[in-house]
Amino acid sequence: MYIFELEIKVRDYECDIQGILNNSVYQNYLEHTRHEFLESRNVSFADLHEQGVDPVVARIEIAYKTPLKPGDTAICKLYVKKEGIKYVFHQDIFRKSDNKVSVKAKVEACVIVNGKIAASHPALDGLVEE
Amino acid sequence: MYIFELEIKVRDYECDIQGILNNSVYQNYLEHTRHEFLESRNVSFADLHEQGVDPVVARIEIAYKTPLKPGDTAICKLYVKKEGIKYVFHQDIFRKSDNKVSVKAKVEACVIVNGKIAASHPALDGLVEE
Amino acid sequence: MYIFELEIKVRDYECDIQGILNNSVYQNYLEHTRHEFLESRNVSFADLHEQGVDPVVARIEIAYKTPLKPGDTAICKLYVKKEGIKYVFHQDIFRKSDNKVSVKAKVEACVIVNGKIAASHPALDGLVEE
Amino acid sequence: MYIFELEIKVRDYECDIQGILNNSVYQNYLEHTRHEFLESRNVSFADLHEQGVDPVVARIEIAYKTPLKPGDTAICKLYVKKEGIKYVFHQDIFRKSDNKVSVKAKVEACVIVNGKIAASHPALDGLVEE
Repeated sequence: MYIFELEIKVRDYECDIQGILNNSVYQNYLEHTRHEFLESRNVSFADLHEQGVDPVVARIEIAYKTPLKPGDTAICKLYVKKEGIKYVFHQDIFRKSDNKVSVKAKVEACVIVNGKIAASHPALDGLVEE
Repeated sequence: MYIFELEIKVRDYECDIQGILNNSVYQNYLEHTRHEFLESRNVSFADLHEQGVDPVVARIEIAYKTPLKPGDTAICKLYVKKEGIKYVFHQDIFRKSDNKVSVKAKVEACVIVNGKIAASHPALDGLVEE
Repeated sequence: MYIFELEIKVRDYECDIQGILNNSVYQNYLEHTRHEFLESRNVSFADLHEQGVDPVVARIEIAYKTPLKPGDTAICKLYVKKEGIKYVFHQDIFRKSDNKVSVKAKVEACVIVNGKIAASHPALDGLVEE
Repeated sequence: MYIFELEIKVRDYECDIQGILNNSVYQNYLEHTRHEFLESRNVSFADLHEQGVDPVVARIEIAYKTPLKPGDTAICKLYVKKEGIKYVFHQDIFRKSDNKVSVKAKVEACVIVNGKIAASHPALDGLVEE
């Protein structure tokens, strides 16, 4: 079901006074995984922005299951579906050491072209599973 | 309906190459607002941790409405309800200049006491609306 | 000697597993203080960038004296001198509760105009002490 | 001269409105490189903290040479010397694509043992070049 996978080593500064990865950092990992997925398909988020094409997140849901800690490695996996004008990324993060689910997320993105919401964009449509 | 409000000035380094506040930073604002709310009720997140009491986020939903930009100020508001073992924070962020909704969020937290999920904790129960 | 001052409340997520403000975050505070200083003089860092004018840091020295912790408030002060093509910001951060020096920093910035280092720029020259 | 090397891919959210890696993020890369270096020698920063041993940065100097951008990969190299009670890390970051120096840094660390500055600590002394 997953079509892309990225390994991310937890960095100590990303962890907070509870000794675990801060909640917001999972969102960094989710974004970085999406952008590396784009890059793996020869789509650059930065180049898109230069061309006036901005994928933006409209809605995000994250369920936190198992906290990651210093020394842990995250395995970040995703697949993506088109639902109406939305590109819906299903993204799960696993703890590498025991393959436990750390986070389950659903990220709904739209694409803004020259300042207006577009129904789709060719650069992104190739990424979507049929 | 809201019981706490915090003003946060957007910092330029929090904005990304799209020229807007990065998605993950709203989660920083939401967390900081919750912790300042606790502090306003004389509950310190850091002290709780020292005592083996760790509120943790179990689930978060964020709807992104209007992006914040350099120069903007966010008004972060919240109220909180108890639902079973969960403390559910309803948190909205407004753009100060025109009072537009920037982000609507629902954050479900549990409390871990000495490593185990607890149904509630006295330090937090006083925060909840009847 | 100082010509600008900004109060910043420490945010819990900025603190790391040692329970203190992570070293890199002081640099965030230093940058935010400079940009708020610019704004106080009606100079917007974001607008400058739109006009092809980019102040960039060429060199930074930070001496760490007293660590800031959750609950602390930082008082960030600065003054600035022109030395050759450099704008040199002298920036000190104090812990509000006891006025102890937390960090002493010297930040050397240059200005890039349309991709080339410039000796100076009118938007910035007004900021410098005679 | 270098005794450790780490490759870090730039993440888009680490870049700011100037379209380049924010200055403070290099400090994140420098810290992560030091901690990965420790881990490569079987020393865990998190475990040290649990044992009351806290390496802390006393002073940092960073010279910024070539900015990193979205899509770039950093090669982070270091060596370390003992100077009196200080562990002095010499850390350089290179842009992988053309091997250009991006940042040159010198990071002076001390070790705090049970709340007091110590002249040295066995866990760290093995890391230092003779």
